[in-house]
Amino acid sequence: MDCTFCAIVAGDVPADVVIDEADFVAFLDRRPVFKGHVLLVPRTHVPTLLDLPGTLHAGLTETASRLAAAAVAGLGAQGTFVAMNNVVSQSVPHLHVHVVPRTKGDGLRGFFWPRTTYASDEESATYAARLVAALPSPS
Amino acid sequence: MDCTFCAIVAGDVPADVVIDEADFVAFLDRRPVFKGHVLLVPRTHVPTLLDLPGTLHAGLTETASRLAAAAVAGLGAQGTFVAMNNVVSQSVPHLHVHVVPRTKGDGLRGFFWPRTTYASDEESATYAARLVAALPSPS
Repeated sequence: MDCTFCAIVAGDVPADVVIDEADFVAFLDRRPVFKGHVLLVPRTHVPTLLDLPGTLHAGLTETASRLAAAAVAGLGAQGTFVAMNNVVSQSVPHLHVHVVPRTKGDGLRGFFWPRTTYASDEESATYAARLVAALPSPS
Repeated sequence: MDCTFCAIVAGDVPADVVIDEADFVAFLDRRPVFKGHVLLVPRTHVPTLLDLPGTLHAGLTETASRLAAAAVAGLGAQGTFVAMNNVVSQSVPHLHVHVVPRTKGDGLRGFFWPRTTYASDEESATYAARLVAALPSPS
């Protein structure tokens, strides 16, 4: 398997590593949105969030939170953008959480631009019902 | 405290609720990026990721994952965008994870547009070192 992130985890591809722990590795994105932009990945090859074993659920949040804290304390960020793409817009098919340092006025507004609206309350209720019907049970 | 999301959790403000469980509530964003865009919030008022109690770390990932699965199974999405803003660009100061259904060609490319670069390997190493130095210990 030819996975860039697995190669970084294995040490076969160089990276600026920020976290190298039992379950997770984090390293700088080489083309950051802002400098200090980190990618957090599970050490094992997990394609998307849906494939992440339950045993790693707590660690993913906890490690992302620690990286967000480090962006504030270490880089002077005012806040953070923490995000992942699953399948669509996912450049490397190995689950990765972006932790991006944010500062007011940094220009990264509107990653959530053109908002739409529901035509009616009935339409939004229909969407909610479809999600509810498809929702997996808690593990 | 005048928090819109606490009011939704309490049932005082109407919303299209998708999840109403012990620790988390999820409902449709009224101004979705794409229809079926859900906001996942902890039931208790938690301002940002850094404030989320460790007892809710696993649940946040697990519940977001279930919502992402529901977007695929229930709405026919090909993938999902799962993201949170902490402090900067955070419209409501109650931690919320956006789970947005994605389809190839939907136009939501480039939420990560203008990328920058590090001037040198030394510069990126410095950023990594600052993050490492500021990183909280695992809990």
